[in-house]
Amino acid sequence: MQQALHDYTKLHQLSRHARTLTGIAHLLEWDQETYMPAGAAESRGEQLKTLAGLIHTEKTGKKFANLLSKLIDIPSGTIKAKNLSHPQTAAVREWRREYIKSKALPKRFVEEFAKHSSNSILAWREAKSKNAFKDFAPFLKKTVDMLRKKAEYVGYEAHPYDALLDDYEPGVTTQEISKIFTPLRQSIVDLLKKISAAKQVDDRFIHGKFPHDKQLAFSKRLLHDMGYDMHFGRLDLSTHPFSLAPHPTDSRITTRFHPTSLMSCISVVLHEAGHALYEMGLPKEQYGSPLGDYVSLGIHESQSRWWETRIGQSKPFWKHYLPLLKEQFKGNLDKVSLDDFYRALNKVEPTLIRVEADEVTYSLHVILRFELERALIEGSLAVKEVPEVWNAKMKELLDITPPTNAEGCLQDIHWSMGAFGYFPTYTLGNLYAAHLFEAFAKKHSDWEKQVAAGNLVFIKDWLKESVHQHGRRYSSHELLTNITGKKFNAEAFVNYLNKKYAEIYDLSHK
Amino acid sequence: MQQALHDYTKLHQLSRHARTLTGIAHLLEWDQETYMPAGAAESRGEQLKTLAGLIHTEKTGKKFANLLSKLIDIPSGTIKAKNLSHPQTAAVREWRREYIKSKALPKRFVEEFAKHSSNSILAWREAKSKNAFKDFAPFLKKTVDMLRKKAEYVGYEAHPYDALLDDYEPGVTTQEISKIFTPLRQSIVDLLKKISAAKQVDDRFIHGKFPHDKQLAFSKRLLHDMGYDMHFGRLDLSTHPFSLAPHPTDSRITTRFHPTSLMSCISVVLHEAGHALYEMGLPKEQYGSPLGDYVSLGIHESQSRWWETRIGQSKPFWKHYLPLLKEQFKGNLDKVSLDDFYRALNKVEPTLIRVEADEVTYSLHVILRFELERALIEGSLAVKEVPEVWNAKMKELLDITPPTNAEGCLQDIHWSMGAFGYFPTYTLGNLYAAHLFEAFAKKHSDWEKQVAAGNLVFIKDWLKESVHQHGRRYSSHELLTNITGKKFNAEAFVNYLNKKYAEIYDLSHK
Repeated sequence: MQQALHDYTKLHQLSRHARTLTGIAHLLEWDQETYMPAGAAESRGEQLKTLAGLIHTEKTGKKFANLLSKLIDIPSGTIKAKNLSHPQTAAVREWRREYIKSKALPKRFVEEFAKHSSNSILAWREAKSKNAFKDFAPFLKKTVDMLRKKAEYVGYEAHPYDALLDDYEPGVTTQEISKIFTPLRQSIVDLLKKISAAKQVDDRFIHGKFPHDKQLAFSKRLLHDMGYDMHFGRLDLSTHPFSLAPHPTDSRITTRFHPTSLMSCISVVLHEAGHALYEMGLPKEQYGSPLGDYVSLGIHESQSRWWETRIGQSKPFWKHYLPLLKEQFKGNLDKVSLDDFYRALNKVEPTLIRVEADEVTYSLHVILRFELERALIEGSLAVKEVPEVWNAKMKELLDITPPTNAEGCLQDIHWSMGAFGYFPTYTLGNLYAAHLFEAFAKKHSDWEKQVAAGNLVFIKDWLKESVHQHGRRYSSHELLTNITGKKFNAEAFVNYLNKKYAEIYDLSHK
Repeated sequence: MQQALHDYTKLHQLSRHARTLTGIAHLLEWDQETYMPAGAAESRGEQLKTLAGLIHTEKTGKKFANLLSKLIDIPSGTIKAKNLSHPQTAAVREWRREYIKSKALPKRFVEEFAKHSSNSILAWREAKSKNAFKDFAPFLKKTVDMLRKKAEYVGYEAHPYDALLDDYEPGVTTQEISKIFTPLRQSIVDLLKKISAAKQVDDRFIHGKFPHDKQLAFSKRLLHDMGYDMHFGRLDLSTHPFSLAPHPTDSRITTRFHPTSLMSCISVVLHEAGHALYEMGLPKEQYGSPLGDYVSLGIHESQSRWWETRIGQSKPFWKHYLPLLKEQFKGNLDKVSLDDFYRALNKVEPTLIRVEADEVTYSLHVILRFELERALIEGSLAVKEVPEVWNAKMKELLDITPPTNAEGCLQDIHWSMGAFGYFPTYTLGNLYAAHLFEAFAKKHSDWEKQVAAGNLVFIKDWLKESVHQHGRRYSSHELLTNITGKKFNAEAFVNYLNKKYAEIYDLSHK
């Protein structure tokens, strides 16, 4: 019975080889957004295409299929190897799922898509800087066409968008998302109405001129306190902040400076570090197997939003850090009280840009994008209509209209990367974080006291133990249920928003 | 007769695929030396090993061999395709040479060597910082053992070191190098004796505190004037300066600051930019074929030493740039005349560190390393004896003794990278540059006037037209003969040194 273990180990080795190539591609992507000379863009596209082709070949090759077939019957999904552990069995099932999906895509398509995405990112960047949607439209059109084709290759039950969603949030369908988002949309719109009718908070003191080097120094201090180890990571600058991990020992993040807002860089760093800590927390010895991989982008986002909003926008956190912030930025904040500061950084206001949106309106930005993507992929919306529909939905949900497409439908990088189905995971992340937080607060009932004392590492440890260490052993919903003992639902998030903002905007007696 | 062209194009495509992977490896190496978190070292080793294995597989695969066989008979080297152009025929011969060499090495060996080198670099860095040769010795021992094995795999006629040299300077043998280096050693030792007996020049004013940002700004000015286009390159910092080009459109360099010397960073930048301009000047459409590749490291080094010494240490150059340097570093150089400055930057003095050596003593450092490498590879020297023999040769050639191994046999990165056979190309580069310079000075008899007027781009253009654009169409010696009309010899370099330093040290009447 050693044979199954032997085959499993060989499969892991093969899979690790492909994962290493994916890690290399991540490094190339990191470089592309940070230090790559602009003139190298075309060759970078060729490099990424070359890697994508190799990875696809390895993941769909005969060698892989033969080994996998020894452990599981690929067509039916019946496990053949009887003596694998529970986690190993979960890994084998996941390998099968990925294999079937990869196998459905022709290599030429994968390479072509990688190259197109690389070119498309450049076209988007140019178009955004010129506010010229029409320059980007042909690229987006090709992306949508290719993604519709991809959905056909991969197959789906109810909606072609299911096939794309599955890349980011395995097993979750368009219908399920719609069922969660529809009542959520309504709850948030209701809350937003109440907030809009209340007295607005004053946040003028967190806007102004804040030296970039001091913003960076403060951000690094936070990273250190969270337990983000610079021995295994980096903080750089890029136009669109991101985190990328070629390996759990190389988990990098980027940030950027807002022209006036002090909290922008800090929020970004907490957010991206949340992602990076997840990658750092994955078990290294499982690198290349599903047990060394993250569960889904929704779970990934739960980690980033956890640090950004649940910790970084909480009162206990600033009880500890506001004095340090005042120290760093002498003059600007001298007379600000903790309560005023807390209210200011949680100010709710409909704005144009998703990544700068507050916690309440954020999900409306996501829901807008989800509705547009779904329509583009099902073919009920044409690319050329995107700016108009975008603006109409902004009006409907947030009652504002983007003055330019650069501040409207051209603002995000995702569509240029071909990442349709990605946006919904941003809101799922918020929902998952809220669900998880209830378990965390039960376990660490003194968390507010600890955070107010500047202790953050116990949070990282709890997340590692509860979430990170399992890799992809469980699906997102299984994992949430295991941790919380409850079936996943949006209630925790809605309750959290209502309670928090009722206090901030004094809504309770209205 | 279209078939041969068709096969040639397919071979080029295949080869381009492998070259793209090599370019990716270069980016990983660049990152390793500039921005990689220290803790990622092990995973970087795995990434480089993975790429090395893939590249080796592609270069030795059946697909490649079958296509190549249609164009040339691999065992005999007889060209089969009659209607290829002369450059295409040269490319096919070169592909065959590389194929035979790659095929001789087992994939496992190639991967193992890549991984060992990556680990060895880290061990060397650590050992150097601790001045602990004994910590590095086991790594070096393994490197030497593996290289001796490599020589056996690859084969050689007279000396196992030939097989290693061939990686860097194709076709040149240990015996030929010895035949050039022996009289050169003597000529330089003779010149050095005369210089040592003469009155030493004063260079105190180019030592002191020079703000790093200003050194960088001046260096960037030089890069700009040389025609190094930042759209296709970058300048970063690293402990050991280098240039790496993942692609002709992505040709990067690094530099570092010397604690006291003003000229160190400037020299490094001119040197590395010489390398980078070569890569940028290779024909892009030939990327991945020998016609898009550099000839040899000796020719590569001729380009870097050209800019560093022949231009950057010439009087006309500083006629233009000294006033700008004075502007940048107000105070330090105010009263320095052009003649004094020129003498100072060409000061000859035996020193410990190769990369900081003057133009005269530089080759003695190289010859020392060549003699050690030859002995290690032939087995007449044991790794543990290296520090002792190093120090003895330093005494013999330069009459100084390194106080520590960190300043002695641990100073260079090359052995840690497994790059034996590389050092001789440094001196060949100086010799080649001198040989080429005679042709350049004939063609541009007013070069001194032009350089003194701040015009440098015509130099880049001449090098591109004469050297870069041909890729590897010719061997190094063929190329030199084509350009100069003369068979290569060391005379031009020796004459240049004797003439230049006779003037600087007023040796003529002695």
